[in-house]
Amino acid sequence: MSNRYTLNYWPIPFRGQFIRYVLAHAGQDWAEPGPEAVDALRVAPVGDQPLPMMAPPMLHDAEADVWLSQMPAILSYLARQHGLMPEDSRRAALTDKVVADCNDVLDEMTQSGGKRMWDQESWDAYAEDRLPRWLAIFEETGRAHGLTREGGTILGTEQPVLADLATACLWATMTEKLPPLARIVEDHAPAVLYLSRRIAARGPIAAMRAEQDAKNGAEVWCGGQIEASLREVLGA
Amino acid sequence: MSNRYTLNYWPIPFRGQFIRYVLAHAGQDWAEPGPEAVDALRVAPVGDQPLPMMAPPMLHDAEADVWLSQMPAILSYLARQHGLMPEDSRRAALTDKVVADCNDVLDEMTQSGGKRMWDQESWDAYAEDRLPRWLAIFEETGRAHGLTREGGTILGTEQPVLADLATACLWATMTEKLPPLARIVEDHAPAVLYLSRRIAARGPIAAMRAEQDAKNGAEVWCGGQIEASLREVLGA
Repeated sequence: MSNRYTLNYWPIPFRGQFIRYVLAHAGQDWAEPGPEAVDALRVAPVGDQPLPMMAPPMLHDAEADVWLSQMPAILSYLARQHGLMPEDSRRAALTDKVVADCNDVLDEMTQSGGKRMWDQESWDAYAEDRLPRWLAIFEETGRAHGLTREGGTILGTEQPVLADLATACLWATMTEKLPPLARIVEDHAPAVLYLSRRIAARGPIAAMRAEQDAKNGAEVWCGGQIEASLREVLGA
Repeated sequence: MSNRYTLNYWPIPFRGQFIRYVLAHAGQDWAEPGPEAVDALRVAPVGDQPLPMMAPPMLHDAEADVWLSQMPAILSYLARQHGLMPEDSRRAALTDKVVADCNDVLDEMTQSGGKRMWDQESWDAYAEDRLPRWLAIFEETGRAHGLTREGGTILGTEQPVLADLATACLWATMTEKLPPLARIVEDHAPAVLYLSRRIAARGPIAAMRAEQDAKNGAEVWCGGQIEASLREVLGA
């Protein structure tokens, strides 16, 4: 039988990894076409795309025949399909907010897809100001809802929901792929780092990570020159 | 009686305007504290913020005591509160995708909050490549769902929902505040431009716009040096 889902994304973690975390946690199998197919979808005239879109990730749900781009929209859709979005409107809204924060951190860490490269000066400024602030935002979001190093009620609940999965994917992936980041994250958001590592180590997610690393290489995060500049300033 | 909603945002259109469009269309009154209060909220230590966040807009729903940042999260919350989010999961997901696209266009038009300024060369490249592509994405999204210059079934329905309001706010506001943009938008997305102007002219939204312009000045879009550089390259 063919898979319900197809994830069109390059063979790197970055934005696509969030979707892989949710699909793996939800017990779904999915297909990933090769990078040539992903590129072809990206550059096709918008009238020829199954859904007019600027950039992958692009998900296809064959069961519902839904095509969807934009990582936050895809996560919200999948979370609602698989019981990972809180029913309470306040917590659902907070979930969307956490996902949007994750998306912003990805943009900042890559200077919006490599529009500029990092140098030591720009990185040091970021690592002393906005990055710790982002970490404090995640840590405080957890703390305000009872997150300790052992668990919590919005981040770190017994059963992870979308807010946990997205948070974990952000910080576990970055600190694994760019090890010198781990010290900064631990300094400013220890409970979030431990939560992230606990979730990354759960069976289905750990298996997905091992498979991705085996297939695509364990060394890549966002790829390209921007990753090279990030590794350089980090001494990674 | 006090208002249910408080919108913490600077007295400029840009991201806050999307929230004003939705609140006005939904028939809500809301308060907006002055810029000093907004700045104070933004720079407060995260532990002192009502919700840990990086930047306004920040909405408070006093009825539900919900605090929320991130424009897409706020729009999704308000749309669900006020019957502006399609119940069908496919259309709801597409709505989130359109809102995320709007948010990306804001980032690109302002080079992520003015991280770089526009010069003629960078603007011309943008105006010949990614901007027309964004416009084609919006136009094709409408066309794929039956949008003509007169109306349509996802964008341009009889009763505007969140996808219409966000799309309209994006293109009507930018083309009004930066008039030379209108020609580019009309060239690549005429149906979307007309839809945007129809929605911007609806009673409650037109009244809100007039009030904002009277209070804050009609000449500002995103403000700051980045707006100055945008006006310069546009000859606006």
